[in-house]
Amino acid sequence: MSAASLLPRVLPRGLWGALAQQLQASSSWMSNAGTVLPASFTAYDVGRSSNIKWHEGAVPQADKEKLLGQKGTVLWFTGLSGSGKSTVACTLEHALAARGKATALLDGDNIRHGLNKNLGFSAEDRAENIRRIGEVSKLFADAGIITLVSFISPYKRDRDSVRARLEAGRFVEVYMKVSIITSCLDPRTRTAQKLRRSQDDMDEVVMCFP
Amino acid sequence: MSAASLLPRVLPRGLWGALAQQLQASSSWMSNAGTVLPASFTAYDVGRSSNIKWHEGAVPQADKEKLLGQKGTVLWFTGLSGSGKSTVACTLEHALAARGKATALLDGDNIRHGLNKNLGFSAEDRAENIRRIGEVSKLFADAGIITLVSFISPYKRDRDSVRARLEAGRFVEVYMKVSIITSCLDPRTRTAQKLRRSQDDMDEVVMCFP
Repeated sequence: MSAASLLPRVLPRGLWGALAQQLQASSSWMSNAGTVLPASFTAYDVGRSSNIKWHEGAVPQADKEKLLGQKGTVLWFTGLSGSGKSTVACTLEHALAARGKATALLDGDNIRHGLNKNLGFSAEDRAENIRRIGEVSKLFADAGIITLVSFISPYKRDRDSVRARLEAGRFVEVYMKVSIITSCLDPRTRTAQKLRRSQDDMDEVVMCFP
Repeated sequence: MSAASLLPRVLPRGLWGALAQQLQASSSWMSNAGTVLPASFTAYDVGRSSNIKWHEGAVPQADKEKLLGQKGTVLWFTGLSGSGKSTVACTLEHALAARGKATALLDGDNIRHGLNKNLGFSAEDRAENIRRIGEVSKLFADAGIITLVSFISPYKRDRDSVRARLEAGRFVEVYMKVSIITSCLDPRTRTAQKLRRSQDDMDEVVMCFP
């Protein structure tokens, strides 16, 4: 079978007739180190390798988990600003690392300044913020990594959307049950400022947590 | 120091006077199993744990790399549709897994249907598509994972933006140097259809690759 005879399958002769003629005139584009390859060669045939087993799909999650000796899981920390989400998540990550576990930590530091730097704080942007974080945490879980996610994520519907994207048992929600007063006492929190700014906003936040 | 004496630091007495009075009348919100905690307690003090070393930062990349015995790297496959990017990336991922390496594969299958499902194919959306993929691959590299990325990504400026987000040596660009004719011969490719649809578009694509 000549290379040119394959062309009609994908190229209409009308527009690409000149190209087909060029192909018939020369097969130099098909040669590699002097060897003429089959006309229909693909990546599978390049170099006529016989010692490479080609793959179309990624390494399965189960294989990655076996290799790492752990289960790809998302630990989703939620709770008020200043409730200790990041502190507990960071401390847990260190504890897991000390036990030889492969982990990733997603928080404001590496998400809001990177992947989600083009998002603001409107209701729509907040939902998109959580959606993207959920999708990234799923990618990490698919790679067999124990993924710790630390964001306020006040809305149950947003957290449930992420949960629905993962297999049962792979999404663990960790609610930091700390009172709003305790949250205010942490000088790093913005809860107090938020309370002053808008009582309505804060009522909404408080109501959203279980 | 009483709990109430801490309040002026974060709460203006005007608005929160009632709350402060309530606090002075009862310290039940500060007790845990009958023990009154210090008024300024934070996550560090809960339960008065002495056997937990609290951490504010994630496990450093270097520690994760030492644990995994590898370097967090992004292998960025670029090239025409049908040039074998995904086939080579998948095959390489299997070869790395066989050598005990922790990997992740980002491609159309898990990105366009997840993280980037809200993006179309306008010039702006294509740039955002690559930007997000770049940020996610950086997160994986930060976690010490060898990350294989397989997208057409025709524009050098977009690839260079991703490269600039990573430390030198952590971004490896793999250009699949396959001619446009070979690309057309692969029945799975859409290159031929694209060529028919718009010669201008395709010229642009061809010119963008080195």
